[in-house]
Amino acid sequence: MAIKFQLEKTCRQTGARLGVLTTPHGSFSTPIFMPVGTQATVKTLTPAQLQVVGAEIILSNTYHLYLRPGHVVVEKAGGLHHFMQWSGSILTDSGGFQVFSLNDLRKITEEGVEFRSHLDGSRQFLSPELATHVQNALGADIIMCFDECTPYPADYSYAKTSLERTIRWAARCVKAHAKPSEQALFGIIQGGMYRDLRAESVKAMTELDFPGYALGGLSVGERKPLMYEMLESTVPFMPQDKPRYLMGVGSADCLVEGVLRGIDMFDCVLPTRVARNGTALTANGKVVVRNATYAEDFAPIEAGCDCYTCQHFSRAYVRHLIKAEEVLGLTLISIHNLRFLLRLMADMRQAIREDRSGDFASAVLSRLQ
Amino acid sequence: MAIKFQLEKTCRQTGARLGVLTTPHGSFSTPIFMPVGTQATVKTLTPAQLQVVGAEIILSNTYHLYLRPGHVVVEKAGGLHHFMQWSGSILTDSGGFQVFSLNDLRKITEEGVEFRSHLDGSRQFLSPELATHVQNALGADIIMCFDECTPYPADYSYAKTSLERTIRWAARCVKAHAKPSEQALFGIIQGGMYRDLRAESVKAMTELDFPGYALGGLSVGERKPLMYEMLESTVPFMPQDKPRYLMGVGSADCLVEGVLRGIDMFDCVLPTRVARNGTALTANGKVVVRNATYAEDFAPIEAGCDCYTCQHFSRAYVRHLIKAEEVLGLTLISIHNLRFLLRLMADMRQAIREDRSGDFASAVLSRLQ
Repeated sequence: MAIKFQLEKTCRQTGARLGVLTTPHGSFSTPIFMPVGTQATVKTLTPAQLQVVGAEIILSNTYHLYLRPGHVVVEKAGGLHHFMQWSGSILTDSGGFQVFSLNDLRKITEEGVEFRSHLDGSRQFLSPELATHVQNALGADIIMCFDECTPYPADYSYAKTSLERTIRWAARCVKAHAKPSEQALFGIIQGGMYRDLRAESVKAMTELDFPGYALGGLSVGERKPLMYEMLESTVPFMPQDKPRYLMGVGSADCLVEGVLRGIDMFDCVLPTRVARNGTALTANGKVVVRNATYAEDFAPIEAGCDCYTCQHFSRAYVRHLIKAEEVLGLTLISIHNLRFLLRLMADMRQAIREDRSGDFASAVLSRLQ
Repeated sequence: MAIKFQLEKTCRQTGARLGVLTTPHGSFSTPIFMPVGTQATVKTLTPAQLQVVGAEIILSNTYHLYLRPGHVVVEKAGGLHHFMQWSGSILTDSGGFQVFSLNDLRKITEEGVEFRSHLDGSRQFLSPELATHVQNALGADIIMCFDECTPYPADYSYAKTSLERTIRWAARCVKAHAKPSEQALFGIIQGGMYRDLRAESVKAMTELDFPGYALGGLSVGERKPLMYEMLESTVPFMPQDKPRYLMGVGSADCLVEGVLRGIDMFDCVLPTRVARNGTALTANGKVVVRNATYAEDFAPIEAGCDCYTCQHFSRAYVRHLIKAEEVLGLTLISIHNLRFLLRLMADMRQAIREDRSGDFASAVLSRLQ
């Protein structure tokens, strides 16, 4: 087995779980947030800076790396860890999400998906076998099944057809996976916003006995209460002894709500993406640092924050950098935003340890309002 | 006196000098290269990264900071050192160069220069008094007289008129300078490519008894041999006991040639600017990392280099970042380029110390070919 998951406890107040996940590149406690390094770099940060903010596992994208620089180049470099010099753990997604979200001209068949590269318009094809092969070459610690991320809204019949194909694809991914002792392949639960389809998906995926399970097709445009409802109706049927990963979710409130409902892993581009708009995340909500109101505000982005940015720089300086289109502004906000989310998860873990995750969550959520 | 310059020795082989310059923010050995932080940041780098590459004094731009965020904001922040969190020394130029190089619609009068902001086209005005006042507010350790950077080519009569105005402006800067015990005001020698005008400029500037002297109006489009000729005919007449600063020069060969001719300080945007084109500087000349030839080159940018980039990353990875338009690529090349130039200067200082600067320069220049 490539990974080991040890469930340490479930909070007495909520469904929140504390665990330890061990990969070939180290152990970390869950629940955890994974910064996203789409193109083999978490945008604007060096691996050294990423380590300082407290990242332990990051996500990278099969779709992007397949198109550029190509998985063969990464494999020749000694794999993704070596290529990007990240010594912690890595998870790669399968490319499924990007194939569907970045391509209007995709054509889905039972065999796989034909699509056009967003880089040069070239005709491309990904299948469960190829996506798995590419991920074997990239060499991440955790890899994902090639699935269709069911769009929202989707009618019942589409969601069912899509889900059933995703299940057949999952079995093909398992078969194609060449390095099960080095890389853990996770299954992905789909089913749109339909409880019975989600249940069917859980059943089929658990039959394939994956070392971990992701929830896909959530946070795709539906309202948050609906997402929480889907978690509540799905998570309890997922295996207790395997990590549960909610894909593409990373706002502070959703992280907290997800943890309360038994999720162990999250990823999202949000903290680095909003940084590029000059927006900082704090315990009291967003601070749009680029706004004129901060022009002469010499306080840090977030009082009491232990990140490099808040320990050294003022809102006025960061705002100046953003207005002047200086890259350092993005770097400094990204450092803060990632540190904020990673610290939030660490605090959440401590709250679970002390059986007060419900109280902690209420306090966090009320400040975020 | 804001600064102290101690000339330690002149090389027995050449005119190269070894010195120690002490400012209110520390001491450093000369000859030295100053990375440029135009808008209160050396592009793409944190102050921590800048310190690691070995920077001891950086340059920032009055013109840019005057327009954005405004010198009043920087002054309220506690000055430029505090605003940008750079604890080493800082030199600000006067804005003269930018007013002339970034503005086609400038109008020069005896009083000063009217120009349009490159940001919003607004009508702006800088005079010797205002440029000095702004630099007093910014609070750099070394500040520069407001001058006209004589363009190249310029006929004799224009160069003479321009020079004489620059001399009158220098006297006004001296008079306007409000903090001579905290900030050292350097005079700037102009005179185009005319030896007698350069001599006249040296004479007039030394009469004003500045704590340091810069050579301006060089590296402005003339061929390198002409620049070297101007150095040879000007530097020997400059005071021995004051630092000599060659403005806007930073290619490896020009640094070496300048040092041989008795220059102590240099600045240039080159190392960070070419980084943004995917070009790395090495002892064997430029490496255009973005070229396809490096797609599967897993060697570092420069073998044996002690920078963070070369210690960790391959040309293939840096090329991927540049092709993928990832900011980290610019950061990694900037780190390397600055480290390369700063190490070159350190090696040059060692060569002077050991009276072998001529041999060292020959070896460096032949490898750069």
